[in-house]
Amino acid sequence: MPPLGQRLFAEFLGTGALLCAVIGSGIMAERLAGGNMAIALLSNTLATVFALYVLIEVLGPVSGAHFNPLVTLVVWSKTPSTLEGRSQAALFFIAVQLLGAVAGAWLAHAMFDLSVLQSSAKLRGGWGQWLAEAVATAGLVLVILRAPPGKAAGLVACYIGAAYWFTASTSFANPAAVLGRMLSNSFAGIAPASAAGFIMAEAVGAAAGVWLSRWLGPTSAGSVT
Amino acid sequence: MPPLGQRLFAEFLGTGALLCAVIGSGIMAERLAGGNMAIALLSNTLATVFALYVLIEVLGPVSGAHFNPLVTLVVWSKTPSTLEGRSQAALFFIAVQLLGAVAGAWLAHAMFDLSVLQSSAKLRGGWGQWLAEAVATAGLVLVILRAPPGKAAGLVACYIGAAYWFTASTSFANPAAVLGRMLSNSFAGIAPASAAGFIMAEAVGAAAGVWLSRWLGPTSAGSVT
Amino acid sequence: MPPLGQRLFAEFLGTGALLCAVIGSGIMAERLAGGNMAIALLSNTLATVFALYVLIEVLGPVSGAHFNPLVTLVVWSKTPSTLEGRSQAALFFIAVQLLGAVAGAWLAHAMFDLSVLQSSAKLRGGWGQWLAEAVATAGLVLVILRAPPGKAAGLVACYIGAAYWFTASTSFANPAAVLGRMLSNSFAGIAPASAAGFIMAEAVGAAAGVWLSRWLGPTSAGSVT
Amino acid sequence: MPPLGQRLFAEFLGTGALLCAVIGSGIMAERLAGGNMAIALLSNTLATVFALYVLIEVLGPVSGAHFNPLVTLVVWSKTPSTLEGRSQAALFFIAVQLLGAVAGAWLAHAMFDLSVLQSSAKLRGGWGQWLAEAVATAGLVLVILRAPPGKAAGLVACYIGAAYWFTASTSFANPAAVLGRMLSNSFAGIAPASAAGFIMAEAVGAAAGVWLSRWLGPTSAGSVT
Repeated sequence: MPPLGQRLFAEFLGTGALLCAVIGSGIMAERLAGGNMAIALLSNTLATVFALYVLIEVLGPVSGAHFNPLVTLVVWSKTPSTLEGRSQAALFFIAVQLLGAVAGAWLAHAMFDLSVLQSSAKLRGGWGQWLAEAVATAGLVLVILRAPPGKAAGLVACYIGAAYWFTASTSFANPAAVLGRMLSNSFAGIAPASAAGFIMAEAVGAAAGVWLSRWLGPTSAGSVT
Repeated sequence: MPPLGQRLFAEFLGTGALLCAVIGSGIMAERLAGGNMAIALLSNTLATVFALYVLIEVLGPVSGAHFNPLVTLVVWSKTPSTLEGRSQAALFFIAVQLLGAVAGAWLAHAMFDLSVLQSSAKLRGGWGQWLAEAVATAGLVLVILRAPPGKAAGLVACYIGAAYWFTASTSFANPAAVLGRMLSNSFAGIAPASAAGFIMAEAVGAAAGVWLSRWLGPTSAGSVT
Repeated sequence: MPPLGQRLFAEFLGTGALLCAVIGSGIMAERLAGGNMAIALLSNTLATVFALYVLIEVLGPVSGAHFNPLVTLVVWSKTPSTLEGRSQAALFFIAVQLLGAVAGAWLAHAMFDLSVLQSSAKLRGGWGQWLAEAVATAGLVLVILRAPPGKAAGLVACYIGAAYWFTASTSFANPAAVLGRMLSNSFAGIAPASAAGFIMAEAVGAAAGVWLSRWLGPTSAGSVT
Repeated sequence: MPPLGQRLFAEFLGTGALLCAVIGSGIMAERLAGGNMAIALLSNTLATVFALYVLIEVLGPVSGAHFNPLVTLVVWSKTPSTLEGRSQAALFFIAVQLLGAVAGAWLAHAMFDLSVLQSSAKLRGGWGQWLAEAVATAGLVLVILRAPPGKAAGLVACYIGAAYWFTASTSFANPAAVLGRMLSNSFAGIAPASAAGFIMAEAVGAAAGVWLSRWLGPTSAGSVT
């Protein structure tokens, strides 16, 4: 396993690049789509799927490519090692993921000549949206816990590509993504007032994903990357 | 092979998730597409292809990832085991697939804040549509029976992605999907009055697929998952 | 190698399914696209890419999955066997490819409740279009002759997906496709008066592809399927 | 390793085909898109992703499939061989890449019945655009330096597909592409006056990519193709 510093740098870089891709492609898509939001979401979907696949393949060998505090917690709870070491690493992972998400949002704004510091005004919430976030995160955790060896990158990317459309919330499924997208008043944004509801729904969904995976029995070979 | 309970849970979960993805992405696509139905079907196609690929890869190792009564019957008729055990398992598989399809439709409605209980008003039928369903199902069975080892997930997903466009019926090719989509008055729905015709055409197509595969000779190595 | 009868059936079935997919998805796309031809071609592209990939993977082990008289001639000219056997098999291959293309066009029309017998009125020609067909076919031959082992299905499908857009002719690159599309007065059609020019350009392109491949030197391992 | 002549021919052919695909699909997309630039860029993106994947897989075994002077310089700086041989080969590689880019632009124009000699009038520049080009190229270099063995073709293609959307400049990331696109007054063009800024930003980005990769530590196995 690479040194902790390199792993943290990979998580920072990967989460930043992911948020930059999600927010940047959302800005580009909204600018070009002429008001047709299905075309905008389709473009945003493809860019996200491509970016996720690349980031997980390229950075997975360094850090496991979590880019998501809930994924780190789920994976950490499955890793057979001393409690202390795991907790500490998990805290560092989550910290750099959150920092990366913020940096990624800011980088997207800088590239598109927008003011770097923003705050989204797009309210997202209600029982349907919260249910959608829980479903989205449960599915993500299920895919990560049960992906056949060597296939997690493609599967996670395709899963998110589907979930952008079949969940009513367009599938954030990641508290770090919620933070980064709070800071962008664009297509992919979420108002700070809506963040807590989304993150709580995601946490419930992550727990449900772990529980569903247990019901499906052991995998022949678990794999995170 | 995993215990029957886990296999049935995988079929329930997978068929539910598939129908939730098909119906949910149809609702999202119709809402956003601004009346351009090609964009709506394109979005629905991508979400379905991504979801099918993920579900077959993730749940295939547990249950074989049929998610479709006709696939279960075709695979069951090929499996060398005692007749009694096969028939029983097939009946249970089909039952949980149908339950899963209903649950998936309802989950999609709940996420999009629609009334859970619906019934489609979209009539689909006539000789062209029935021919299309037979062609769609024959092709699906052919792909499943002849996919090279390890490639069925991608091939089935891509096949359905193509068949959404080249068949006039947008390729249901699955009686469980017909049931789930009967219960949704949305983009992907089918009126209950049209269901029997579609299911009969699919059964004819499945038989034709088995027959076509026989004409092509033995495969070097058959594979369902 | 499977018996000739099975190989011919695979070529008939594959070429038929390919033309059915190209023409059927073109009809569906044109009907739904509301006049936006980029959306129609995008849908037609995705359906074709998915269908080609599936057909080559599934039927390749039986017949080599040519589905194209020029591909058969190029591959035949490379196969070390007795001249007589090769010539005969090539003639049979080409005959069933042409029959399959016609059957595929008719099947698409039947599914979409159109009159089965049609003739395209869409004139396609001029030096730009002919150059485009030559380029499209040269590229296709190059990809087939130089695909790394086991990757031809994905590479041919992706190549055609790109060539639908970067060639001015939307890349027929296949005399059997020209025949099938002559018989369809729809999005994918080509007027009979334009067929000879396209086929001649494709033949020139195929020869150019063989010649370009020779300049690139030997491959580490040639592969047709 | 193949003889230098074959490697140079592969670089010429590949860079030409890449530029032909980018510019040709841009022309087709703009013609058909009816003014909706998101649909045009989406079509352009898919064609580019498909073309890049095919070109790298098919020509990689011959030349390494750089198609990009900055990639050649980065790879050259990593190759353990005599300085003199490397420098010379790099100069030849860059020369044929530039020639190929010009030829590819001209071929696209000829296919679409446009005047072959053109000059773009589309100004692209400003700090946001330059930052975007630097980010795009840094990411490309990072992907190339760290792609797991055998996966570079798909990863580079997907990376560029994402970067078309998340960078404000639509990700040229290649001085040879800048040259080819300077010579096309179409969707994908860039005014000659804007070229120097883009190329300088790309060079800075390439250096940043090398530096970021160093911070991530050694790869288990580096791979260019």
